[in-house]
Order: sequence, then C-alpha cells, then structure tokens
Amino acid sequence: MGYNVSLNKLTQPLVKELIDNSEKLRVGVETLVNGSVIIDAGINALGGLEAGRIIAEICLGGMGKVTITHSPITTNWPLTVNVHTGNPVLGCLGSQYAGWSLSHEKYYALGSGPARALATKIKDGKEEPVEELYKELAYHDEADSTVLVIENDALPPIEIVEKVAAACKVDPSRLTIIVTPTSSLAGGVQVVARVLEVAMHKAHALHFPLENIIDGSGSAPICPPHPKFVKAMGRTNDAILFAGQVHIFVKGDDASAEKLARELPSSTSKDYGKPFADIFKQYDYDFFKIDAMLFSPASVIVTAVESGNSFRAGKLDNALLDQSFGA
Amino acid sequence: MGYNVSLNKLTQPLVKELIDNSEKLRVGVETLVNGSVIIDAGINALGGLEAGRIIAEICLGGMGKVTITHSPITTNWPLTVNVHTGNPVLGCLGSQYAGWSLSHEKYYALGSGPARALATKIKDGKEEPVEELYKELAYHDEADSTVLVIENDALPPIEIVEKVAAACKVDPSRLTIIVTPTSSLAGGVQVVARVLEVAMHKAHALHFPLENIIDGSGSAPICPPHPKFVKAMGRTNDAILFAGQVHIFVKGDDASAEKLARELPSSTSKDYGKPFADIFKQYDYDFFKIDAMLFSPASVIVTAVESGNSFRAGKLDNALLDQSFGA
Amino acid sequence: MGYNVSLNKLTQPLVKELIDNSEKLRVGVETLVNGSVIIDAGINALGGLEAGRIIAEICLGGMGKVTITHSPITTNWPLTVNVHTGNPVLGCLGSQYAGWSLSHEKYYALGSGPARALATKIKDGKEEPVEELYKELAYHDEADSTVLVIENDALPPIEIVEKVAAACKVDPSRLTIIVTPTSSLAGGVQVVARVLEVAMHKAHALHFPLENIIDGSGSAPICPPHPKFVKAMGRTNDAILFAGQVHIFVKGDDASAEKLARELPSSTSKDYGKPFADIFKQYDYDFFKIDAMLFSPASVIVTAVESGNSFRAGKLDNALLDQSFGA
Repeated sequence: MGYNVSLNKLTQPLVKELIDNSEKLRVGVETLVNGSVIIDAGINALGGLEAGRIIAEICLGGMGKVTITHSPITTNWPLTVNVHTGNPVLGCLGSQYAGWSLSHEKYYALGSGPARALATKIKDGKEEPVEELYKELAYHDEADSTVLVIENDALPPIEIVEKVAAACKVDPSRLTIIVTPTSSLAGGVQVVARVLEVAMHKAHALHFPLENIIDGSGSAPICPPHPKFVKAMGRTNDAILFAGQVHIFVKGDDASAEKLARELPSSTSKDYGKPFADIFKQYDYDFFKIDAMLFSPASVIVTAVESGNSFRAGKLDNALLDQSFGA
Repeated sequence: MGYNVSLNKLTQPLVKELIDNSEKLRVGVETLVNGSVIIDAGINALGGLEAGRIIAEICLGGMGKVTITHSPITTNWPLTVNVHTGNPVLGCLGSQYAGWSLSHEKYYALGSGPARALATKIKDGKEEPVEELYKELAYHDEADSTVLVIENDALPPIEIVEKVAAACKVDPSRLTIIVTPTSSLAGGVQVVARVLEVAMHKAHALHFPLENIIDGSGSAPICPPHPKFVKAMGRTNDAILFAGQVHIFVKGDDASAEKLARELPSSTSKDYGKPFADIFKQYDYDFFKIDAMLFSPASVIVTAVESGNSFRAGKLDNALLDQSFGA
Repeated sequence: MGYNVSLNKLTQPLVKELIDNSEKLRVGVETLVNGSVIIDAGINALGGLEAGRIIAEICLGGMGKVTITHSPITTNWPLTVNVHTGNPVLGCLGSQYAGWSLSHEKYYALGSGPARALATKIKDGKEEPVEELYKELAYHDEADSTVLVIENDALPPIEIVEKVAAACKVDPSRLTIIVTPTSSLAGGVQVVARVLEVAMHKAHALHFPLENIIDGSGSAPICPPHPKFVKAMGRTNDAILFAGQVHIFVKGDDASAEKLARELPSSTSKDYGKPFADIFKQYDYDFFKIDAMLFSPASVIVTAVESGNSFRAGKLDNALLDQSFGA
C-alpha cells in the first residue's frame, strides 16, 4: 500500500524518552554483553501507568497517540486509555500486533513493535518477512536501530535477543527489547491500548480490505492488574471485549461497512459472555481453541466515508466488566 | 489590547511538525515554482484525525491545545475534540476564525490561521489590516514566515498564493498554505475544533467587550465526514450547534455575563431546530440568509470572575445530532 | 525509598517553557535585583487555564502529566483536570504538597514544588530537611537551579526569596518563584490538580505505608474562581472533596487496601457535608480546627496488586458541588 514511512525511525525518540527517564518511570535498563538494551517494565522494576503509555506508543511504531484520562464511559472504572493513529493499519497491524513468535527452549513470547517490520527469514532460498502479514501490507522497513516489545513475566534469554538482532539485520548494540509482564501496570496499559489493533486484526480476519481502512480511534478502561497470569491476561482482554469502543473510517460501499460493523464486536463470537479467564479455563488453557472472533472491541462504529453513513453494533457490558475486574 | 506575542512565530514549529511527518500523517506536500509550500490534507492525500488535530493547533496560531479523546458527552458519538487556549480572543479571533476572503476567477475560499494577522491592504492610500477585526483586536503581527489554512475541495491557484504572500509581505518561499476539504477527516476535526472560536465570534457580534474575555475551553464531537459538501459542512456545524459546549471566563458585571450566557447558545437563533444542511437548502444555499446568531455552541457556561458567579444556558441535543450525523 | 531522580532537574524544562511562553500564557516574569525570577500567574498578570496546567506539572516535580479535558463526570462542570504520575509518592508528597511554611513579617505562604526537596535547616547543630516528611521519604535532591510555587495573593518580599535560595543552597539567580493566587484561574487549576496529592497525604496520615503505593491517577472538575479568598479556597477544596476521584495501586494485603479505601474518601470526615467555606467560617477561619481527614477525594478505588482485588468507597456529590461552585 506504498507506506513511505520508517516505523523504526519514528519510534526511536520514544525509546530514548523511556531510557532517559528510566528512573522517573521506574523501568530497569540493562545492557547485555552484546550491547543490546533490555528494559524491564514490571518484572524486577515497578513500571507504572506512564511507562505503559509510552510503551504503547512504541508498540504503535510512533504512529499513534495514547492518552490516559478519567471518564465515566464505564460505570465503575474511570481510568481510560484513548488511542488514535495517523494510520491504523500500518501502526496497529504493521507494528502493534503481537505477531512474531519467538522461542528458545522453554521461553516463548510474542513480539510486537517496529522490529517486526524489519525481520526477515530465508525460506526456500529466498528472503522474506518473518510474518506473512507483511506481504499483504506490502510494507518492509529499513533501519539501523530497532525495538521489540515482549509481553512476558521473564527477561528473554540471550539467544532470543541474538535471534531478533540477526533477523532484523541490526547490530545487537542497536536493539532494544522491552519486557512488560501481563500482570504489571505497564503491561496492562500497553495491552488495553490495543483496542484499535484488535479491531484491525479482526477486520483483516473478516477479509475486509485493509486498504479501505483510512483512520480510526479507540478507548478502553485500564484494568486493575492481577498477580496470576491467566486472570491478568483475562482482564486485559476483557477491558477490550466488554468495554472497548472504536470508531473506524472506511472507503468502499455501505454494504461492506455495515457488514464490518455488524461482525466486528466481541459479542458476535460464540465464546462471548463470560470473563476471558473462564473461557480460557473451559478450553483447558489452549489459546487456539478459543474462537478467534472473540478478540475485538465491545462497541463499534464504522463510518463509510464515500456515503457518509455510519453503522454501529455491539455495546459496553458493565456487569461482565465488573465480573472480570472484580469490582 | 497589547498582545505581545507573534502568532506566526508560535505556529512555525507546528507547521514544521506537519511537514516533517507528512508521510506518517498522510498529507501531501508540494513546493510550487515560487517556493510556496502547499499541504494537501484531504484532496489527493488522505489526511486523518491526527493531521486535523495538528492543523487545528496551527489555525489557533500556536495559542491553543487540541486533544482527541473518547467521551460519553453525547449518546452516540464518543470521538471528541477538546480545545483550550492561552488566550481565546487572540487565538480564536486573531487566528482561527476564517475571516480572510480570497478569490480568483471561480476559486473562492476563506482563509484562517496566523497569516491573517500579517495581511494588509492599501485603502485610501493608507495601509491597513485586510480584516477590520484586527483594528478592534489592536493586534498586528510581524514575521518572515507564515501559514494560512483554507477549507476547500481544491488546491488554490497560484494567483491566490501570490496574493497571500504579497499581502503578508513574506517571500513566497516562506508561505505555507494548508488545504482541508470539508468532507475530509482532517477538515472535520479542524472545523469542529472551532467550538470555542464560534463562541468568541458570537460574543463579538453580541457586542460583548472582547477585552473582558480572559479564558475559555470547549469540546465537541468529531463528525463523520460526508462526501457531499453541503452535508459535510452541515455536520461540522451541527457538531458545534447541537453538541458543542464551552466554559468561558469573563471580567465585568454579572448582568453582562448572564446576558452573554443567555444569548450565546445556538438554540437562541430563530433558525435553530433542524440539521444545518436543511437550513442551508431552505435558504436556497445562500449562506448570508442564515441567521448569524445560529453559529454557536449548544451549551454555554459563563463565569464572571469578579463575582465568582456562573451562568449557564443551552443544552446538548442528541436527537438533532443523530439526525445530522446519520446515526 | 531510594529514589534516584532529581525532581529539580526534571522540572527545569517546564519552568523554561513557562518563561519562554510568558506572553502567550499571560504570566508576568520579573527578575529581582538578586537575580531571582518571580513569575506572576494571576496577581497583576491574567494567567489562565494553560498556565495553571503547566504550573501543576511544575508542582509535581516533572513527575506527572496534567491534562485538561471536557467530561460528563459531574453533571454541571465539564472542565476537568486529569493527573497521573510516574510515582505518586515522590511526585505528590516529595514535590506537589504545599508543606514548606514561609513567613516574613505579615507575609505567610506555603511553598510547594521541587525546591522543598533541596531545602535544609540547621537543627541542634546538624543539617536536616526543612520538612520532617523528607526523612520518611528518604529523599533529598541536589541541583543548581530550583523552583518554588507559592499560593498567595501577593508577591513574596525579597526576604522570603533570599531565605528560599539560602535554604536550597542555590545562587539566588538560579531560583524561580511562581505565585498563583487562589482566586485566579491558574491557581484554581494547580490546586485542583492536587486531587491525587491529597489522597497521598491522607494515606500517610492514616499510616498507610507509603512504600506500598506504587501508582495512581486522579481527576477533578476545574472550579470557577471566586474573587474572595475564602470562597476561592473553598471551591478549590470542594472540587476535590465533592468530585475528585482517584484510582490508587498498592502492594500489601487486602485488609490494608480495603481499610485505606474505606478511610480515604472525604465523606469519612466528621466535617464533611457542606461547602468548605462554610466549614471554615464555622471554625472562625482557623484552618487547624478543621478535621484533617476532610482533605481527600470524594471517590476512591484502591487496587491491591498482590491479590488483584479492588476496593472502592465514597461517591461524587453533585448537589454539594453545585452549592459550592454556585451553579
């Protein structure tokens, strides 16, 4: 789609801001023997809401604006994250989506952020993006420095770090990896800030043409963290599933926009109706058994800019949100 | 009123931000043969919400802060623009107001932004501001570089560009003109961000002494764009007329503040009560037949700082807003 | 608690922003004979909402983010201030709290801001912080330049300025003092932005271990200023007491978190129930007769991060807020 921006270059000032203010934001900064920088945003370091906000903007590849406000959108959870981007397809799918599977021995993590747009692998003797998605986005970035965000309760082993640097073709000393546990405040904020991204991802899964999505904005309540991974993950998801809202602007005909609005909300999923942690347990903690259509905002407006008509579907569910957040 | 600021100097960093991030914000940047820079924020380029937000701050002459949040202020339209300024009279009337009529052959446009504060003309052998308003504001800016914002569906002809540079006495290479179609996302945001400006303008029309207005803040829902000009313009107006709110702080006696509050809301106009596009049609698309008192926020609070009393009038009308926005 | 940040260094860019934009923000900047800079944000200068917002961030020692939005959190007062910090204990208690008593002849003022963290005195031949609180915080800053914020209707005499510079061990030419009258717009904003700080202060008074408070966020409506000091002060307090809300994240057991939530809201005070100005009058304007437990937000959520449970108490009271603000 001819994106003429470098997500990595746009993001570097935000990485610098996080590192320069590490003491203020209470994130740990460690330089490995290979020169890579590891930022701990909630494992041994405390992290916090503001660290999470900046990390969310890093996840978005510098394309988005994330603000924290208090709002009565939900009945009981005023703390709210707002997100809009210069380009939701590129910012959310091309960077924020946690699409890069990384593993070494028992360490498994999904990587998000602009490093994904640099990463390549050799397949059948040819170099191609690590993720298929980039072929559809027709986007590949080039940069000397890069950053990856990992949602995990442990720092990655050096092998993962080396693998990321190699795949991105950057010197290890030019790689920063930020780690946010799901159970941390920063982790919660950066996941909840994915409210627009999950809408982009589901639109893609619904075969809505991505090039027709021209802009978007979203909000969701910031979830109280939970010390147990499953509950913590459940809450970050439920913030979006039960109380996330997005307004998306699309090109194309009304029928397509209406169909997108109708199919997009979380409530269209057969698995909708109880806290995510309960669903996860019901499927024996097998993530891939959960209906992929569940992952989407509660409330959706789609405006078809060629007709000026708006279509809306879904609604916020305060009762389920309270059940998940433990009101 | 002795304003000792250069709106143009305050605005230049914002213009630089827009140009430096043109690919990210999806605005077109073209340098004409005379060196002037034309920014397309929604004609051939896509533009978007964030481009509109920055352009709104440019319109305000660097005096204001514009933020985009989600809010339940209205029932169905969460996307909201918030605006407050260091000085609403200077920022809104001295810069944001679209008061400069520019025409060449069939091209007609109203210009807004800090260039207005530089522009002079010769009348009866004497140099004076292009707009009478500046005599009342007792403000004239001096600067080497300037920027004008035009709400139009077409880029201006070179003759308009030359006319603006000449009137502002800047080298054409130091002039930037930003064009936002009413039917674009960026155009919608920058117009809706005029919620405080229309209050200033109507206060002026009501002969409230401008020097008594010391501060103010406003919000309005961001309208879904419409491809047809009349409907698009209707929605940008209705966002303010049916759902704009302002809180203004004034000096002077209570009676004047109360009168201002009572007379300011859009609902005081004899033309209030249906979507703007319908009113426009009813008057055979003759803008000047519409009651000028219509252009104002729906809901108004005026605080008289010398007594501490606040006066409020008007209210949001969700039904009319939905009728206009096409809920 | 081992804070490894310099509040004063973090704050200097904000002081520079205020001074560089003094004409835009309508604050007065005066350099005294000793080189100290006095910023008038509402005595002879007008000041305004945005000046107040920046001063609030200065009060927070550069640790916090203060935003102004419109919100329907309260029924009649949409103008809202939102505040969150990288570290509420250090930012709010270590800087924003107005804990430094300064007097010279008839001039009496409470100082807030990062200068407090530099200030020492000699007691029993030993140097110690001017405020006991810093011993508990285990924080002392070192810096060449500093800034103090004073809430007062008059500029401080040179003797106070000299005293502050000496106590902070900075050259007088490196000291900036910002003065915001309670009855000014900027003064109102910077006080209302203390919604999170009063929660920290009351948590401390309730003997909740400060090291267990890891993050927090708050909001409150911006009060209309009142020309009379008592009413003005009343409204700034009532904004928080009747309509402030905070969400605090704490370590430790559930019982402690629940107790904190239960005891924190303003409604737990025996003096709660009428506008602050009336209470003040009832106690013959003797501040110290007022129940110290009154000074706290209306509505509180405390999340115990070790269990993931949230506890809530208190509620917003629109009727009392309207009574105070003079709806």
